[in-house]
Amino acid sequence: MIDVAIIGGGPAALSAAINCRRRNKTVKIFARGLDTSMLFTAEKVDNYPGLPDMGGEELLNRFQQHAIQSGVTFQRCRISQILPMGDHFMINAENEFVEARAIILATGIHKSRGIQGEAEAIGKGVSYCATCDGMLYRGKKVVVVGENEEGEAEANFLADICTEVTYVPLYEPVLYLKENVTVMRTKPLAVVTENGVLTGLETKDGVISCDGIFFAKNSMPPDSLIYGLKTEGAQIVTDKRMATNLPFVYAAGDCTGAPYQIAKAVGEGQVAALSAVQDLDAAQREAAKAESVN
Amino acid sequence: MIDVAIIGGGPAALSAAINCRRRNKTVKIFARGLDTSMLFTAEKVDNYPGLPDMGGEELLNRFQQHAIQSGVTFQRCRISQILPMGDHFMINAENEFVEARAIILATGIHKSRGIQGEAEAIGKGVSYCATCDGMLYRGKKVVVVGENEEGEAEANFLADICTEVTYVPLYEPVLYLKENVTVMRTKPLAVVTENGVLTGLETKDGVISCDGIFFAKNSMPPDSLIYGLKTEGAQIVTDKRMATNLPFVYAAGDCTGAPYQIAKAVGEGQVAALSAVQDLDAAQREAAKAESVN
Repeated sequence: MIDVAIIGGGPAALSAAINCRRRNKTVKIFARGLDTSMLFTAEKVDNYPGLPDMGGEELLNRFQQHAIQSGVTFQRCRISQILPMGDHFMINAENEFVEARAIILATGIHKSRGIQGEAEAIGKGVSYCATCDGMLYRGKKVVVVGENEEGEAEANFLADICTEVTYVPLYEPVLYLKENVTVMRTKPLAVVTENGVLTGLETKDGVISCDGIFFAKNSMPPDSLIYGLKTEGAQIVTDKRMATNLPFVYAAGDCTGAPYQIAKAVGEGQVAALSAVQDLDAAQREAAKAESVN
Repeated sequence: MIDVAIIGGGPAALSAAINCRRRNKTVKIFARGLDTSMLFTAEKVDNYPGLPDMGGEELLNRFQQHAIQSGVTFQRCRISQILPMGDHFMINAENEFVEARAIILATGIHKSRGIQGEAEAIGKGVSYCATCDGMLYRGKKVVVVGENEEGEAEANFLADICTEVTYVPLYEPVLYLKENVTVMRTKPLAVVTENGVLTGLETKDGVISCDGIFFAKNSMPPDSLIYGLKTEGAQIVTDKRMATNLPFVYAAGDCTGAPYQIAKAVGEGQVAALSAVQDLDAAQREAAKAESVN
């Protein structure tokens, strides 16, 4: 069990991690790669105080080195779901399950907007995690839309459960699919429902009829990552302490809204970390008190 | 006329200044000295991402160098009052008046708490600025309480206007006072009023009867700096954009509340700067539009 799990690998995530370590908490960063932050592509940054005139990649490297020196650990993976388990969380890291006491979301700007009807059908035919929801589609027809090769693993997993799996890759090349997976190169347009029941995926080449659609995305809409998370449009709602509406879940950086800037992200990462540490310590004291009473 | 005046010389102030310059605004930092930030005394800082394991003074020097390189100007002085003048502000910088379009308050933690009855009597016998309010006490008796030698200038100025000036220095040594100023070394305890009228200063050695009391403080309570500024206890209330309740007045860093940390201050300084720039640009567009209609 780790104390704090941080989702994302940019400045907000690294700042949060450094600050958790300073307070002696165990912390792990979950990121698809350390080059996925928008900062990585910035040619020149001149408004992060103390480090003038730096390339984005160089600045990100410095943040990472600082985090590594501080004892932060990293796991390179995509997070598809975070489940609240009462006094801790279960994080689905590509089907390896990691437990953590608190979560800091530093997922950046959510870029893939989703297609028409997608958001409305989450949990009603639309899913982002085959391992979690695959069994609901035993003996049924599903479509998997993959923004990257992780979609192939989803499709192959579903191929053992479902009668028909159609795979719509949005990238090249497709590496490995089981024989009974049908590949269709097209552009998804909308989720089709009839009386609230999902019946198909509309594409520019016609409707693929199915009972469920799985999306494997480069970035997940934050409210599909944790059920019940309060968002406003694409941004996660936080208070001044960077706490979200869910206990022990915090957010920092671009995912909380504009300005999309490094110093703002680093500052919010620090505040989120210190709030998480404060709340964990308070909970621990409460638990110790309750135990001494019994 | 400068675009943005920044009050304070710590990390929040320097970050705000760097970010204003990046958006091509003219900016001046007003600070009593660049060694007055709490950061200056920090032995070691290890949680500002990218610059691990630094002395506080070294880190502050780096921020200052960055600001100087960016074209930020500095004025070493104490600010006693900021007056809103409609479309700009008038800043009293030790009796030199500077005009600015927007204000960013980065005044740090306000340490001197004030004595009993002081806050209630602001503007009703208690003042922080002899130049501003001295004339109201022509022919009357006043006490000046000085936390530093700037109190002497206040007392000497009042000595030409008032019939009696008592000077209570809270520091050593007193350098120069006019002959008709009486020095009294004591500890101020309370502002004495009768039916809402100030009648004296209670000290540990008895009450000094007077009509007005001037305080020369190391740090000003932020709401005495600008009339009508909304505070909660010692902290300035801001929204997510770091805007205060007053138009074109922003705040950042320790003066907005805990955690009292560098990254948080730097992040807020950036957000305050970008909000100020955005609002100034919007106002300029509005003004241009109004002009083109006429």
